[in-house]
Amino acid sequence: MILLGLDPGLGTTGWGLIRAEGNRLSHLANGQLKTDTKAPLARRLAHLDAMLAALIADHAPQAAACEEVFVNSNAQSTLKLGQARGVVICAAARAGLDVGEYTPSIVKKAVVGTGAADKVQVHAMVSRLLPGVKIAGADAADALAVAICHAHHLASARRHG
Amino acid sequence: MILLGLDPGLGTTGWGLIRAEGNRLSHLANGQLKTDTKAPLARRLAHLDAMLAALIADHAPQAAACEEVFVNSNAQSTLKLGQARGVVICAAARAGLDVGEYTPSIVKKAVVGTGAADKVQVHAMVSRLLPGVKIAGADAADALAVAICHAHHLASARRHG
Repeated sequence: MILLGLDPGLGTTGWGLIRAEGNRLSHLANGQLKTDTKAPLARRLAHLDAMLAALIADHAPQAAACEEVFVNSNAQSTLKLGQARGVVICAAARAGLDVGEYTPSIVKKAVVGTGAADKVQVHAMVSRLLPGVKIAGADAADALAVAICHAHHLASARRHG
Repeated sequence: MILLGLDPGLGTTGWGLIRAEGNRLSHLANGQLKTDTKAPLARRLAHLDAMLAALIADHAPQAAACEEVFVNSNAQSTLKLGQARGVVICAAARAGLDVGEYTPSIVKKAVVGTGAADKVQVHAMVSRLLPGVKIAGADAADALAVAICHAHHLASARRHG
């Protein structure tokens, strides 16, 4: 099963694709989608949408997952993030994918073993769990982490289901 | 020229289509798109996106406009609105439309003549400016108001050239 993890943002959206076979995980690809900060909002969102549609068409994942948002105290940032997040989740759903949502602490717990882990620990564990991976950046690392979290939850749902 | 006004929301998105010929405006259609509050976020966003894509394909507007958001002090509401707004703006941009954005006070000024107008005044003026219109609800009225505002700004941009 191919899983797509997503870490949405208007400026940079991280993505990570992994293959899950039973409990075995392997890395397929990861990267960061960027939009032009000088372009109008509508163009940026449409560009993000088009890049995601191409990515999904290329790699044909069977499920997607996204971090639940840490809502910012800055309302304008929250709105911007929300707009990007809406487009990212919608692009996956339009392609027929279910989109799992996990809080940051659930993701950390799945990857590192504790919900209080920091970014460096998450990054290190993602590298260890996906041998040979070259991580494109911090947002791609977060996207891979949420994909790993989703793989664990799907496997556990199968065991208990 | 056919203009599409949009008032985005996750639960209800208002839309209004008008025809602008020089300074003459006429009503074409308006309505409110609703998503199932019990469905997962991804399904709701994809449903909203599909309804908008169908609407745009049916009516072939040449431009779209959307109110700039009044950011709520409630971060969760702002995030929800942002997600819907991202999908709505992206659906228009994906169809090749430019999406004008106007603050609520600019819209009120364009429709009523003062940025301090209330909802009732806006609704009444929308009905007067678009003879024969039957307005589907408050969100549709706001969408028609932003379409009228966009028509005025495009006409004024043409005059000043």
